[in-house]
Amino acid sequence: MNFIKSYQKTLYICFVVFALVFVAGLSFSDDMDQGLLKKTQQLFSPLPKVMESAQNPVTPEKIKLGKMLFFESRISIDGTVSCSKCHPFSLYAADGLKTAVGNNCKPNPRNTPTVLNAASQISQHWIGNRASVEDQAKQAVVGPAAFGMVKYEDVENRLKRYSAYVALFKGAFPEDKDPVTVDNFAKAIGAFERTLVTPAPFDAYLKGDNKALTAGQKQGLKLFIDSGCGVCHSGTYLGGQMYKKFGIIEPYWTYTKSEKIDEGRFAITKNEADKYVFKVPILRNVAKTPPYFHDGSVESLASSVIIMGKVQLGRDINEKQAAQIVEFLRSLTGEIPKDLLEVPVLPTLD
Amino acid sequence: MNFIKSYQKTLYICFVVFALVFVAGLSFSDDMDQGLLKKTQQLFSPLPKVMESAQNPVTPEKIKLGKMLFFESRISIDGTVSCSKCHPFSLYAADGLKTAVGNNCKPNPRNTPTVLNAASQISQHWIGNRASVEDQAKQAVVGPAAFGMVKYEDVENRLKRYSAYVALFKGAFPEDKDPVTVDNFAKAIGAFERTLVTPAPFDAYLKGDNKALTAGQKQGLKLFIDSGCGVCHSGTYLGGQMYKKFGIIEPYWTYTKSEKIDEGRFAITKNEADKYVFKVPILRNVAKTPPYFHDGSVESLASSVIIMGKVQLGRDINEKQAAQIVEFLRSLTGEIPKDLLEVPVLPTLD
Repeated sequence: MNFIKSYQKTLYICFVVFALVFVAGLSFSDDMDQGLLKKTQQLFSPLPKVMESAQNPVTPEKIKLGKMLFFESRISIDGTVSCSKCHPFSLYAADGLKTAVGNNCKPNPRNTPTVLNAASQISQHWIGNRASVEDQAKQAVVGPAAFGMVKYEDVENRLKRYSAYVALFKGAFPEDKDPVTVDNFAKAIGAFERTLVTPAPFDAYLKGDNKALTAGQKQGLKLFIDSGCGVCHSGTYLGGQMYKKFGIIEPYWTYTKSEKIDEGRFAITKNEADKYVFKVPILRNVAKTPPYFHDGSVESLASSVIIMGKVQLGRDINEKQAAQIVEFLRSLTGEIPKDLLEVPVLPTLD
Repeated sequence: MNFIKSYQKTLYICFVVFALVFVAGLSFSDDMDQGLLKKTQQLFSPLPKVMESAQNPVTPEKIKLGKMLFFESRISIDGTVSCSKCHPFSLYAADGLKTAVGNNCKPNPRNTPTVLNAASQISQHWIGNRASVEDQAKQAVVGPAAFGMVKYEDVENRLKRYSAYVALFKGAFPEDKDPVTVDNFAKAIGAFERTLVTPAPFDAYLKGDNKALTAGQKQGLKLFIDSGCGVCHSGTYLGGQMYKKFGIIEPYWTYTKSEKIDEGRFAITKNEADKYVFKVPILRNVAKTPPYFHDGSVESLASSVIIMGKVQLGRDINEKQAAQIVEFLRSLTGEIPKDLLEVPVLPTLD
């Protein structure tokens, strides 16, 4: 009997100790969780509904026209290039290629960035040589390795062949006397692109839903912040707000599988300080848009994280840590809204 | 007074005569209408819900997988070719080009036919060198000017990299031990394509709704039949059921803007009788899929009708008549079902 009593007593003590540890642990992890959330909210912010622009107010008429033009290949020199060629929604608006391919298979120098959540960056393209999504659309249509058209007028004339387009331009730009212009073409596409927003679990978390991220994702997030990734990959889009040298600690090509060395913004500024400087890419939907880096030279996201640790932060991120960070990065994958996934049927000649 | 009476009498007679003529005219045109409908129902039949195949039963699992594979470009040699590259739904599943363009911009010899309502033809491609949509998919993936892959095994290995695809193949082909094969790839795409049916006003008419066609479309239909177009362009799809020499009366290139002479089925059969013989193309959605003919050499549908009159029927179809026939052909334009227009999001590596 004594044995049983003593057993019961031990069991009781064990239970109390366990319960105390459990409660303490819970409140400790709760505190940690709240701390992480606060820190996260300081560094990042949730996606807006639309990426507005004072220069190009988003209207339903522009969106409708812009979406059609986004899929329009008949305004490219060889009839094969549309915005959606390099930005298919089936692949999260990137193309899965190392580097982009334009009209007549002309090679582009860099990897296609997604157009999802892309419109509020300081600039467009890897080296920032496009001021805005509107500027990008306008330049792409006459870009020798993009749509390849020679004169804006030719683009306008091709569009004017379709009475449905003429009517849609009139509707979207009612104050213009001659609304079928490449500037309006660019505004319509830009307006459409400004609606390409894909809220993710991370946004729910940022809004205070502590359960929106898994425990593993939170660990990854903590590691992401503690390692210093969030210094550049910050804000609403986790990037897109500054230019940085790729290879602060060591040349990037020491670890990437780059086939040639890209001098980055130096190509446009000719300023020595801009050598190997690129725009910090956004990380929204990053898990869905391999391959990585400006030259698409690395296919694995985990490897990319490890390379970033080495060349940007001088940190040895091990494979386990990289996997944790990748787990966090997956919380940036949003759903593409159904209406975006619906392909518009384009006009035919009367 | 006499004058007024005589005036009333004249008015009365006029009214009676007018009423008689009107009623007679009505019943006459009603008779004509009924006659046209009957004749039409003898020559043509409405679209089925699905273009079934005993060899490849259509299942929801195959459709789902097939739709994804239809948009999959990562299984082409240069990563740019998917079925949807040449068959975008935005352009009624044709590409708007004179002749198709494959991997690495390799030119294809002929114009891209739409895959809408296409699966029940006697064969696929202009010269019938693909037995079925399944055969087409299987051959396209290793076609040097199509997807350009060298070995079927390479295609299978690329697909196997994506665990989501492996699971979808298992679900679609549950009895196969190793379901990720090019044969199953072809079956899945084939099954999806067998659902690509776009019912049009003409189908409602064929089902007895006399008001589904406008008076103008009926005139055009009558002209279409009376001119002999319906001899070859008959059945459910208004074509796709026989091979015919293009240029029975005169060489086709007398009127088309062909850049070279295509010998048609002679290329595969080496039979002199097959020179300039092509499969009679279907006319479903024809108004939405310019340019026309095997070489896409004519952009205008009305011009194509006139050329067909000359070289196939020895008839001078004038511009007014051509316009009427075109008006009828517009009644073959169906709506693309909403679920088809929704682009599937493709798997990424785990």
